[in-house]
Amino acid sequence: MGIMETPHMAERAAYSLDPRLAADTHPVLSIGLCTLLLKDDSRWPWLILVPQRANMREVHDLTPLDQAMLSFETTLVSEMLARLTGCHKINTGALGNVVEQLHIHVVARNIGDANWPGPVWGHGASRPYAPDAAQGLISRMRQAF
Amino acid sequence: MGIMETPHMAERAAYSLDPRLAADTHPVLSIGLCTLLLKDDSRWPWLILVPQRANMREVHDLTPLDQAMLSFETTLVSEMLARLTGCHKINTGALGNVVEQLHIHVVARNIGDANWPGPVWGHGASRPYAPDAAQGLISRMRQAF
Repeated sequence: MGIMETPHMAERAAYSLDPRLAADTHPVLSIGLCTLLLKDDSRWPWLILVPQRANMREVHDLTPLDQAMLSFETTLVSEMLARLTGCHKINTGALGNVVEQLHIHVVARNIGDANWPGPVWGHGASRPYAPDAAQGLISRMRQAF
Repeated sequence: MGIMETPHMAERAAYSLDPRLAADTHPVLSIGLCTLLLKDDSRWPWLILVPQRANMREVHDLTPLDQAMLSFETTLVSEMLARLTGCHKINTGALGNVVEQLHIHVVARNIGDANWPGPVWGHGASRPYAPDAAQGLISRMRQAF
């Protein structure tokens, strides 16, 4: 006996996290639309939101409802990260020049940090967290939500 | 005779464009919340949205309604720029590490352009448009809206 699949089910099943995003991040939690990841680079507290929708490259590829959700979730994450870190400035960006799967960066910046006041993208080599440090930060983020 | 000013009027009167943003951009048009500017750097088609609200540094400093408007206007501008340029990828970002007045970058990127696939921010020196070229691009953008 076959299983009935609606086009809607097939579309949802097709979402999967790009392996390059998975490889250099730690999972934090799943929000409504997005999965939230911590980039494994201790130079800056750096979060990444990935809308759990297949085949999205640009924010304007999302439905209007998903666009509104993404904006809401990005702002939530920005506020949480600013509160948790006491940072000087939040930097957000959606580039996708290397990994095309739609993803939004939210980074806590401080005066004098690596490449300040330049951008975080494309600057030098990642400095991975010690395992305990990443898990400690992730725990505090989960509590802050 | 004095003029009655409500607190609301006083708050709105306090918005003004940061002189550094004004100095290296051309005005394109005023949308609902934002003023739209063309960065005077011909290396990339580069637009900047500035919410016309005083004393805003972060997206989450805006009211929820203004946040929704900003998201909507950023997406509109991204779509228009992608359609107009036929670019490979849109890059958006809100940094504010140098000019703290809240502003959103929307940049059309192409494979092999200056600093591809790295970011546009902090890369080399601006290459201003010839006056006719800037005005031609601005006219096409105004028509595209």
